[in-house]
Amino acid sequence: MMDNSRIDFLNSLRDEFLTSALSNDGINTMEDYARWFAGRNQANEYEVRKIPVDRIDGWRIEDGTGNITHKSGKFFSIQGLRITTNFGNTPQWDQPIINQPEIGILGFITQKKDGVLHFLVQGKMEPGNVNLLQISPTLQATKSNYTTVHGGKKPAYLEYFLDNRRADIVTDQLQSEQGSRFLRKRNRNIIIRIRDDENIEVLPDFFWLTLGQIAALLRQDNIVNMDSRTVLSNIGFRPVETDWSRVCAELGIAPFGQRLLESYCAPDAQAETRFEGILSWFTNLKTLYEVHTQLMPLNQIRGWRLADGEVRHENGKYFSVIGVSVRASSREVSSWEQPLIESARGGVIAFVCQMKNGVLHFIVQARVEPGNFDIIELAPTLQFTPTNYEGADKRALPPFHDLVVNARPEQIRVDQLQSEEGGRFYHDQNRYQVVELPEDLELGELPENYAWMTLNQIKRLIRFNNYFNIEARGLLSCLNP
Amino acid sequence: MMDNSRIDFLNSLRDEFLTSALSNDGINTMEDYARWFAGRNQANEYEVRKIPVDRIDGWRIEDGTGNITHKSGKFFSIQGLRITTNFGNTPQWDQPIINQPEIGILGFITQKKDGVLHFLVQGKMEPGNVNLLQISPTLQATKSNYTTVHGGKKPAYLEYFLDNRRADIVTDQLQSEQGSRFLRKRNRNIIIRIRDDENIEVLPDFFWLTLGQIAALLRQDNIVNMDSRTVLSNIGFRPVETDWSRVCAELGIAPFGQRLLESYCAPDAQAETRFEGILSWFTNLKTLYEVHTQLMPLNQIRGWRLADGEVRHENGKYFSVIGVSVRASSREVSSWEQPLIESARGGVIAFVCQMKNGVLHFIVQARVEPGNFDIIELAPTLQFTPTNYEGADKRALPPFHDLVVNARPEQIRVDQLQSEEGGRFYHDQNRYQVVELPEDLELGELPENYAWMTLNQIKRLIRFNNYFNIEARGLLSCLNP
Repeated sequence: MMDNSRIDFLNSLRDEFLTSALSNDGINTMEDYARWFAGRNQANEYEVRKIPVDRIDGWRIEDGTGNITHKSGKFFSIQGLRITTNFGNTPQWDQPIINQPEIGILGFITQKKDGVLHFLVQGKMEPGNVNLLQISPTLQATKSNYTTVHGGKKPAYLEYFLDNRRADIVTDQLQSEQGSRFLRKRNRNIIIRIRDDENIEVLPDFFWLTLGQIAALLRQDNIVNMDSRTVLSNIGFRPVETDWSRVCAELGIAPFGQRLLESYCAPDAQAETRFEGILSWFTNLKTLYEVHTQLMPLNQIRGWRLADGEVRHENGKYFSVIGVSVRASSREVSSWEQPLIESARGGVIAFVCQMKNGVLHFIVQARVEPGNFDIIELAPTLQFTPTNYEGADKRALPPFHDLVVNARPEQIRVDQLQSEEGGRFYHDQNRYQVVELPEDLELGELPENYAWMTLNQIKRLIRFNNYFNIEARGLLSCLNP
Repeated sequence: MMDNSRIDFLNSLRDEFLTSALSNDGINTMEDYARWFAGRNQANEYEVRKIPVDRIDGWRIEDGTGNITHKSGKFFSIQGLRITTNFGNTPQWDQPIINQPEIGILGFITQKKDGVLHFLVQGKMEPGNVNLLQISPTLQATKSNYTTVHGGKKPAYLEYFLDNRRADIVTDQLQSEQGSRFLRKRNRNIIIRIRDDENIEVLPDFFWLTLGQIAALLRQDNIVNMDSRTVLSNIGFRPVETDWSRVCAELGIAPFGQRLLESYCAPDAQAETRFEGILSWFTNLKTLYEVHTQLMPLNQIRGWRLADGEVRHENGKYFSVIGVSVRASSREVSSWEQPLIESARGGVIAFVCQMKNGVLHFIVQARVEPGNFDIIELAPTLQFTPTNYEGADKRALPPFHDLVVNARPEQIRVDQLQSEEGGRFYHDQNRYQVVELPEDLELGELPENYAWMTLNQIKRLIRFNNYFNIEARGLLSCLNP
């Protein structure tokens, strides 16, 4: 299927991820993929409907606290949290929070096939997905799943991740989930690589794709799930010394794709701020900002109440906690009920970027969120839901929101709807955007918690835990040449 | 003073830290240093005596809880902590813990003088130091100090650290303090570099030294304080492509010094485990080990009580909380009283190292300590106090202790007493040791929470927060060619 001279050319770049990222064809074509995915959709037919949060089978509203917990005491619970901080405009507030202290595994198996690294993706149904079925990592398991403490069968391919003799580690790091919804939740993001000659069975729900093919799916709405996006964001490219204009001409890569490649592979010397300076800026902000959180009974937090089968805020903003009932039409899979979070619609997750010193730089925001593990994490330039600001003073709107909201079409480089995790969030789609500013627009000095970074710097930081938040990581996975 | 041809040779290595580390002379000779330090000892005469912990002026034993707090509610407090963990042999215990949520600054000013980077050290008295005066960083300040919220004058040179236009950042990261004594305490470790031509006043308590000169002081007992050691441990050398045998012959560096240099500058490909594998090992251990801590009233923790003017354990092991009274003989400085921690004597902090693949590797231990910020941190091979094991089963002794305790003299590369922080610890000296195993001794597979690392890998990890604990960092600062 693949053009051998193109593969040879790509392999001459001597970075296997780069080769895979620039391979828009693999052992399967996109037509093969479309057929497989349609088949999986048919095999995974489900019906999901909303039910009252206080009448979820297997779950209860705890006496006294009003906390929402599973009757076994396992899985996750929804409790109240009081937040006090000197960051931002709101010094104190209360909100529900998902408490799930376990560390899960999100992992891709990769293997080199016909000279190109392929990723084993899974077609996976989650009840909160707008379209139910999306592309997920090979393995997506909670600790209870993979240790099977609750009984049940082990997830497919688990053994490759637990036995370090079966595969080489490519990346393996703890990464956070939404700090505005989860209390200090982290998952292990892993990419492993099995031997080229290992014969691995491809189960019906699984399919081999190159990074370039996954990138093509990321240009569609709501296909590549949040867990895939976060794991993929851990991939970084080594600095490559090459004539990018020639490479991009050869491969038919558009000018913005070339600017992305150059930024991914940029030496530190070309950055606005050297890497040590970035670390220092981040360290300083951790000493400036304080956040204190206190778990509280869900029925005692201010402004929130259980009414009409939902836990919601009295002003109708932010999010509510609802219940869903999941019924499978096929006999093979089970039916169940569970709580989900339904957020206010219309969220925007956006990076603003601009050429500086001949390299594309991104405005990164250091942000306190209540569930953060370590005070701040790095977020996209803009991460906000406009309806939550209805009735508020215009000056309360976050910095740079006008650059995104009023961007002219020719400045918009990425613009898709992407889903948050459908196992916890109900129909939660955010608009993922990347806006490139004209080179001659002078923004001046950024606010203290914003900084310019190259993609190379961003990816260097992502190798370590709790630097970039999941919104930023998810958006970064959409930045493909 | 300095030999110019030697400086030129060192500068040809093109790493300013390396040049400074290999410069055992600078604008001041070691004789100049000895005169200055003797003078500072005379100018800083103090008398420190133990007093009952329940009769410390300005401090109180809190009604109800028995917690030890300052009457202003500021500085730090000593509370109780209950720890539950699946790490090690003790699933649950209680202990006193120092609670000081502020992030302080520990920082060195550096400046290039006569072609070599010099560090501005301070002669600083701390009441817990066995010898009172030790070498400290240029700046050693709590957040209360440097924001002067309690009044008082600003620490000298503070402005260089707070105004990023006055200096370049060399390193700047949050690093932990003793996880067995402090609850999630971190300080900002900074090294800044001012312009070569900036005329900076050297106050009487301050003195310029090269890294090589500081290394010479680290070969003496109790001269370079803990805060200096942790900041210096943040320095890493860039990989240098050179013929180390020739360099070391030229500079008169002994074989073990050459092995250290080669390990500091080793490419990842020479390591037993690649860097991504190290990260993966560490990530996996964070998912395996759990630690739950709960603050409790100091008078309600099991096994500990206030008796004879100390808070101590009923079996007399571990540590006690005492009071000290500090009286100055000079009129310029103040007198005060405060609590301190007095630990069991005879602590050993040791790395075991061995040549592997032609590069010196160190056995690093991942270790749960109750005050850790993120479950585990990386510790030296051995970190233990023998008297705490008196009466215990021999099998309870930590791995590799026999390799250290029974090391033959010719295997011992570092062997000094170094002090823990004299502002919190009373006469707390640990024996810092590095033992090099013969190349042909086969240790086999290490226990799951131990790993072999090169110094280059260790230093790469130290650039990020909460990877190495303070005992490991302090010992690393003693590993100088």
